[in-house]
Parts: sequence; C-alpha cells; structure tokens
Amino acid sequence: MTDDAHPWFARHAETLTGALAAIRERSYWSAYPESPSPRVYGETAAADGEAAFRAHLGRRFPLDQPGTAGWVATEASPFGLELGVSYPHAGAAELVRAAQAALPAWRDAGPRTRAAVALELLARLHAHVFELAHAVQFTTGQAFVMAFQAGGPHALDRALEAVAYAYAEMTRHPGVARWEKPAGKGEPLRMTKTFHVVPRGVALVVACNTFPTWNSYPGLFASLVTGNPVIVKPHPRAVLPLAVTVRVAREVLAEAGFDPNLVLLAAEAPGEGLASELATHPAVRIVDFTGSTEYGDWLEAHARQAAVYTEKAGVNAIVVDSTDDFAGMCRNIGFSLTLYSGQMCTTPQNVLVPRGGIATDQGHKSFEEVAAGIAGSVAKLTGDPTRAVEITGAIVNDGVLDRLAGARQVGEVVLDSQELRHPAYPDAVVRTPLLVRLDAADAQTYGQEWFGPIGFLVATDSTAHSLDVFREVAGARGALTAGVYSTDPGVLDAAEAAAVEVGVHLSANLTGGVFVNQSAAFSDFHATGANPAANASLTDGAYVAGRFRIVQSRRPA
Amino acid sequence: MTDDAHPWFARHAETLTGALAAIRERSYWSAYPESPSPRVYGETAAADGEAAFRAHLGRRFPLDQPGTAGWVATEASPFGLELGVSYPHAGAAELVRAAQAALPAWRDAGPRTRAAVALELLARLHAHVFELAHAVQFTTGQAFVMAFQAGGPHALDRALEAVAYAYAEMTRHPGVARWEKPAGKGEPLRMTKTFHVVPRGVALVVACNTFPTWNSYPGLFASLVTGNPVIVKPHPRAVLPLAVTVRVAREVLAEAGFDPNLVLLAAEAPGEGLASELATHPAVRIVDFTGSTEYGDWLEAHARQAAVYTEKAGVNAIVVDSTDDFAGMCRNIGFSLTLYSGQMCTTPQNVLVPRGGIATDQGHKSFEEVAAGIAGSVAKLTGDPTRAVEITGAIVNDGVLDRLAGARQVGEVVLDSQELRHPAYPDAVVRTPLLVRLDAADAQTYGQEWFGPIGFLVATDSTAHSLDVFREVAGARGALTAGVYSTDPGVLDAAEAAAVEVGVHLSANLTGGVFVNQSAAFSDFHATGANPAANASLTDGAYVAGRFRIVQSRRPA
Repeated sequence: MTDDAHPWFARHAETLTGALAAIRERSYWSAYPESPSPRVYGETAAADGEAAFRAHLGRRFPLDQPGTAGWVATEASPFGLELGVSYPHAGAAELVRAAQAALPAWRDAGPRTRAAVALELLARLHAHVFELAHAVQFTTGQAFVMAFQAGGPHALDRALEAVAYAYAEMTRHPGVARWEKPAGKGEPLRMTKTFHVVPRGVALVVACNTFPTWNSYPGLFASLVTGNPVIVKPHPRAVLPLAVTVRVAREVLAEAGFDPNLVLLAAEAPGEGLASELATHPAVRIVDFTGSTEYGDWLEAHARQAAVYTEKAGVNAIVVDSTDDFAGMCRNIGFSLTLYSGQMCTTPQNVLVPRGGIATDQGHKSFEEVAAGIAGSVAKLTGDPTRAVEITGAIVNDGVLDRLAGARQVGEVVLDSQELRHPAYPDAVVRTPLLVRLDAADAQTYGQEWFGPIGFLVATDSTAHSLDVFREVAGARGALTAGVYSTDPGVLDAAEAAAVEVGVHLSANLTGGVFVNQSAAFSDFHATGANPAANASLTDGAYVAGRFRIVQSRRPA
Repeated sequence: MTDDAHPWFARHAETLTGALAAIRERSYWSAYPESPSPRVYGETAAADGEAAFRAHLGRRFPLDQPGTAGWVATEASPFGLELGVSYPHAGAAELVRAAQAALPAWRDAGPRTRAAVALELLARLHAHVFELAHAVQFTTGQAFVMAFQAGGPHALDRALEAVAYAYAEMTRHPGVARWEKPAGKGEPLRMTKTFHVVPRGVALVVACNTFPTWNSYPGLFASLVTGNPVIVKPHPRAVLPLAVTVRVAREVLAEAGFDPNLVLLAAEAPGEGLASELATHPAVRIVDFTGSTEYGDWLEAHARQAAVYTEKAGVNAIVVDSTDDFAGMCRNIGFSLTLYSGQMCTTPQNVLVPRGGIATDQGHKSFEEVAAGIAGSVAKLTGDPTRAVEITGAIVNDGVLDRLAGARQVGEVVLDSQELRHPAYPDAVVRTPLLVRLDAADAQTYGQEWFGPIGFLVATDSTAHSLDVFREVAGARGALTAGVYSTDPGVLDAAEAAAVEVGVHLSANLTGGVFVNQSAAFSDFHATGANPAANASLTDGAYVAGRFRIVQSRRPA
C-alpha cells in the first residue's frame, strides 16, 4: 500500500490548498470562473464547446464500457431540439462486477494519489465546460447562462468542495504513527501503527433531470476520492452531461494508470428500474440520490446495505414581515420565483404575508399591494420574451404543466402564467410564473410541493402566525431554503430560531444580487440533513466521513 | 444563540488541547492515570471509593428523575455479592419527553460551553473512579485492576477522545463568516453568515453487561457534547456503574445551569423491552449500542428514524506462521485467552496454525507443540487460584457456562477448563480457559462466536490457508481484532492485505506487554465499521459527524 502521490498532485496543490482553506473559513472562494465571457475562457471556447455538443447529436456516444449489450436513447429536450444520442447499456451485475475489479488498486493508491487524479479530472472537465453547459441546457431546459454556471463552474466548485472535505477527512490521521507507552522502570512499549483508508465498496450516484452535474458531482467526487468506484446512473432525460463526465473521467483514470471502470455510466432503458436494481445490489455500499421525496424515501428504506445520502423535495417559504426596501424585496422574490421557471429544489413556493399588510419604506402596504408588487416584478422580468427566456428557460417535463394547470384552480389567481414563444427554439415549452393567493387555512394546498413556476401568496394572521406556518410545513415536509424580510431584529431572531428548530437554512432581507434559491459552494451549505427534504448536506464532514473506514495494523517497533 | 464558553472551558483547556493533538497524531496519550496506586490517587481514594460503592448496596439509588413510577433491582454479581440496589423506573414516553424539553437550551449553549461541561463531567467521574471501578467489578465479573483500568481511566480516555473528535468537528467551521463576492465594477455582494450546530434530537445509549462504561461512554459523550440529550439504558445486570455516571452527570449539568434531564437513566424491569421501545421512538434520533449481533442487527433494521452506531460480536482469529520468540508468543496468546475469561469482544477465538507446524527460535514446532505451548502458558497463568482470579475475574452469566460445556464436545480438548474457588468471594463463578483442537474443515464450529473462555486451535494446510480461513470467517461474521505471528515480511504483508480486504484491525508479533484484545484510546481504533462486527469505529470522524447538523442563516452585511 503506497501513497507516493501522483505527479498531478503538485500540479493542483494550489487548488487543493485554496479549497482546504475555503472549507475552514466558509467565506467567499471559487476555483472556476462563473462568467462564460470570451475574456475569461477565450474567443473560441464557446463555439468549440457548442460544436462538441452538436457532434454528439444523433450518434452513439463513444464510451468503451464493459458489458455493453445494446444502446438506449431516452432524452427529449425541453427546447424541442432533436437530441437522438444513444448510450451503451449494460446490466447491473456487469457494471458492479467491473467496478469491484477496479477497487483494490484504487484503494491501495492512497488518499494523495486519488486526490491528484480527482483534481486533474476536475481540470479536464473544466476544459469541457462549454460542451457540458450545452448538454445541461438542452437536457434540463435551463437557459444558457444558468446551464453554464450551475452546470459548469458551480458544479465543479461543489465537486472540489467535496474533494477537499474528503481529503481533509482521510488525512486528519497520519498514515503511520509511532506509539511509545511508558512502562514504569522497564523499557517503554513501542509499536508502529499503520492506518489504511479503506473504501466502503461500490458507490452509486442517481442523478436528477434538472441539475444533472451540480447535484451529482459532490457524491461522485466524494465517493471516488475516498476510494470507491462509482456507477453514475443519470436521469433518462439528462444523460448527456454525465456521459461527457464519465468519458472524461475514464480517460483521466486510464492516463493515470488506473482501471477506467472506476467510473461507469449506467444508462437505462425506459421503465427498466436500473437505479433500484443497482441501489439494492449487495456490493453497492454507497448511494447518492437527488430527486423525488417518494423515491428518496424508498432508497433510504430499501438500500439497507448502503450508506444513503438523499436530497429530496421540500416546501420552501418566505416570511414577509416588513422591509426598508419594498422595491428590492419584490424584485428579489420575483426573480427567485421566475428563475428556471421555479424548477429548483430551492425555489420559494409559499410567500407568507400578514393579511393586514406590512410596514415598508413606501409606507404601509396591504396584502394586496405586496402581492401586486411581487406580481409586478415577475411581470416585468417576463414582459419581453427574448429576455424572459434567458431567465425562465424551458419547462422540463409535462408534469410541471399539469401542476400549473391544477394550481390555477386552487385559489385566486394574482398573476397568470403566460405561454411564451422562444425566439430561437420555437418548439421550446416556456411558461412564466403563476401566482395564486391562498389563505393560511389552505394548508392542504400550500403544505404540498408544487414543483414548477407556481408561487402561493399566503395570507396569515400575523408574522408570528407566518412563522408557525413555516415551522409546521417545513417540519412536516421539509425545506431546502427559507427566507425572511423584516426591519425588526426581534423578528429576524425569531425567524432564525424557527429555522434552527426545524433545521432549514435561512436567508434574511435579500434585496440585491443574492437570491434565496442560490447557494455558493465553499460558503453556503446546501440542505441541512436536519429536516425531511434531505438526509445530508453539501458539504460537511458528515457527507464524507462515512464513505471510508480506517483499518489499522500495528507491529512492534 | 450564544457561545460565550462556560468558565469550565478554561479549567480544562489543557486537557482538550492535549486530546485534540492526540487525535491528530494517534500516538501515545492518556489523560487519566491507569494505575490505581495510592501514589497516584492518594492514600484514601481506594477505601473511600469502595465505601461509596458499598453504601449503595441494598438501597434505592438516589436519582431524582422525572416520571419515576417504581423501582427495579435486576443485578446479580458474578462474584456472588448480594447487590440489591434498586433504581428509579420510568416509561419511555416520560423519559423522552423530559429529554426533549432539555434540548433547546443545551443546543443554544454552543459547542464550547457544551465541551466545557463535558470536560468537567469527565473530571468529576474521574474523582469517582474507585466507586466506578467497584461498581464495574461487581456487575461485570472483571477482576479489580481490570475493572479499574477499563472501567475507569480507559473509559474516560475513550470518552475524552469522543469529546475531542466532536469538538473538532463542531468547530471546524467558524460560528460566523463574512462573505464578499466581487461583482465586476459594482459593489461586492456582502453577506454575514451564521452557522448553527444543531443536534439530531434525543440520543439513546444501550450499554452492555461486560463493559458498561468503556463501551457506552464514547456514544454518551459524543451525543451529549454535540447537543443531544442522552437516555442511558444500562444492561439490567450492570446498572450501577451507569447510575453513578448519570447521577454525576445530572449534578454537573445542574451546577452549570442546565436541565439535568439532559442525561437520564432508563433502568428497566426484567423482560420489559425498554431498549426497543426507546430505540424506535420517533423522537429518538441517535442510538449507540454494544452487545449481541442479533440485537444490533435488529436495531439497525428497526430504529430507522435514528442514526444507529453498533458494536456487535465477531469471530477473532490469530494466524500463526512462524516466530522468533516462541515463548513470548505463547505467553502473549495465553494471556489474551485468559484475560477476563475471554469475555471480551476483542478476545481471540481461533488460533490458526499449519498442521505441519511452524518455524520458531526454538526450531521447528509441530502443531501439537504449538498447542501445548499456548496451553502451557494458560495453565501457568491459572495455576495459582489467588493470582488466577485477578486475571480471569468471574463468569458474567450462565450462558458462558453453557457454551463452555458445549465446546468440550466439539473437538479434542487440549486444555480443559478448571473451576476455581475465588479466595475472597467463595460464590464467584470462576473458570479457566478451555482449549480445543479443531480442523480447518470444522468451519461450522469455529465460524461461530463462542463468547467466553473458549479457544480453538485450528489446524490448517498452510499459512496461506490460514489467511483464507481468516478472510472467510471475518468476511462472513466480522471480527473486532486479528493477530498474526511471522518472521517473514511477505507473510506479514499478506496478512495486512487480508486485514485491509476484510476490514479488520491487525496486530503483528505481539510477544510482550501489548495484547491483541486491548486497544488504547487516542491511538488504536476500536472496531472498523468495515465488517459485520460493527458499523462504527471508536473513534473517528464518522463516529461524531452525523450526530449534529449545521443550519445557516445569512443576512446582508
């Protein structure tokens, strides 16, 4: 068992050092520029990336994996673009067998070498960032800039963050320690102790449709760098971003002298249930999942042989008590509701406002005026279709449209959803947010998740009542985010206490360029693991510490 | 939410600093002297402690807990001493309710204050070390010195180790961070972020009969210091050491201004099944357990609402290949088999020896000579009853005697178990080890755990075969420890590779004062979590990181 780190370790030492400092400080840091500007990425990067993306369309995706017994093509772009990419298909048993065979040499390579390879892989993926961005855009329905940022640099930052936590955890103990215990007048007892980092086994990452890279990279990299081979099971409608990822990973691993089967793509045929088969395979010892509460709960209940990390769905709320920037508040909430048509697990759904209205810098505002202010902000953002689609993107699937239709019936429509025509992609399904007024008594409606461009303006008796509603819904259904607006420090503290009690991250008084549905790697934790919306957080010690074990060997010195 | 650390923090800062350094280095360190000598603890400490212990006998144990609806007395000393201590009894619901009510203030006190209180509690328990030692001795059957060391200083060291890991984990992130993101030519985005450490909920510790403090303190302290109220469910036959512990904990908590119900004793009536009721209570979010594989597996399967940390049973082996110190090897193995009558989860059971014998510093030794050497060592250690009982202690329960009788029938008896009369406690049940010869083909016998003074000398085809047997048994049943004796570096490396593969801690060539069944806090990890004998290790990051969550609050700066 050796750990003479790979030469790539030195190449990326600065990045790792920066990431390790960032996770200690949790202040602002980023390793991958989020601007797709040619000034940052070069004049040809965007065009080259798009060309690389388009070269995949209508073709078999080149991936030399074992056990390929057929090809599957399951994607349908929300932008209406014909994708037609087919992916190699293998059975669960073949994939697991190949992954298992790759494990021992990767385990024995040690933490530093594995970190070196993971860091090089991140750099290579970064070099493919425009190809990834297009793949994310056209499989998820995200507008380009968001697909670039969330699907590229932000996903890479989250991955690097996971690598840093895992590296810190694996190296917090020395590889070898000398133990010398005084023994009275006799010779001390002396032992040499070797501490091996041993992976749990084969890891599975079950990715989602809307954020195929951002939500899967942390688990993928955390498992890989701690020594576990990783089988990546993409959502059938968002395979390409992860196929590109797996291809690059396999190239990097082979180049470093390791079995490329340390990272495998598990593309599935429609209705195959491959995720469940893999997740319950006895050799699969780690599962990372992002997606529905129903399936996440199923995994937690059934993948009993594995450590299961889930991010499921929640019901997010904003408590509006008062503000000294009414326009900024309305703009900020409006943008949060509009961004990617509300198809984020972090999008606020319930805006809780006292029915008697609130105090603002523009004087008292009635409930109706608050509702109109937010509705006006959404209407302004979506008034020009050409600009609107760059915020809303496209609707990811028909389920969202069904919910949108249903939500129109549950209360008074404050702002109706508009069907927009995308100037570049006429077949894209584009909808602007629907805002519906509800009453606090309508808990059976707003107490459920309405994933998509659906916001409820909920009239409560008071801010204290709003906090009660927040606590009840988040306690029962979970939440990924919560917001509060108040000029009263006592209310802010009460909201913070409520957030601590139900285990939800809180953002206060966002009126500028930070939005409740965005979390920044290296500073913001994403999900808490402390409420039903997720059993883990991106990223903390708990997210990485259970992915490996320490096995010690001691010999007399 | 404040974290102005308690004044006790400064009092114990040196201890904490030492412990934090020790867990980084994993070399020799200890905070609590393991010698019960009056030169260390003072002339009257031993007598005072014994008097304190004896004062409990035949009495109601003074513990002012809520919901007490009766008293239970369930202990029977392996030494035949009449204990007759009765403990307050409350239902699961009352205990959980009291624990829940105590949580918020303890959570809000913050990591430093909780660490201060935990460290003070350790110091107070240390002041009761002789009382604890007697309580451990007479409930477990351990001889006094072992009860003192394992039940006192070593248990306190393991507890402190858990406190150190938990403190490091809770404080790896700042309590408050400033985030400033450049925004091109505009003003940077600025946020102040507060990171709250939030406990999972009520914690349950289910303790065992044989090591009531050593095996329960790590979970108790890890949960408590991370903010979780702890309900301590002692084994019905070893209540007193934990009753003393809980009483001291409640005193310290109250003195620090906290609700004493942060630590509660859950003494149970015979056959009540209180552990299962508590472990599956929806508000119980952490369970620590030491005991049988059967019940540990049950907890893992049924306490689904909780993070479950188990140490169960395994089948430990020693691979004997060759030695340059035959006498030392036999002495060392003999002592390991004899100590506490083999009633340790770490006691070796299967000594795997090539049937053709081994090379030694005394020339070639046949299988029979190796068996005779080990048997001779046991016989020598147990020849004088007065000295023997100070190693063997007493038999903890009738199940051990039943197994001992059964083991006589499964193979050729190499050394029979002797019934000894304890010079001080004539009713004590004392037995010396039984050694039985088996063949590698007898896997259905040696492949099971035979808890107690039962050792199998197993004849294998070769050392390679011995390693196969080790791998198979440890892989299927798990193991807490493994040993190897060899003068061949290749064999030592092969044994280490096998140990890594099946996830078992290995000790090589122990011939002196270190024994395979002993693990030293701050240096040796106890259990790995990587084989069926345990799903966690004492103590690593994974043992503490999941006991709390981080909830963040961000406000514009």
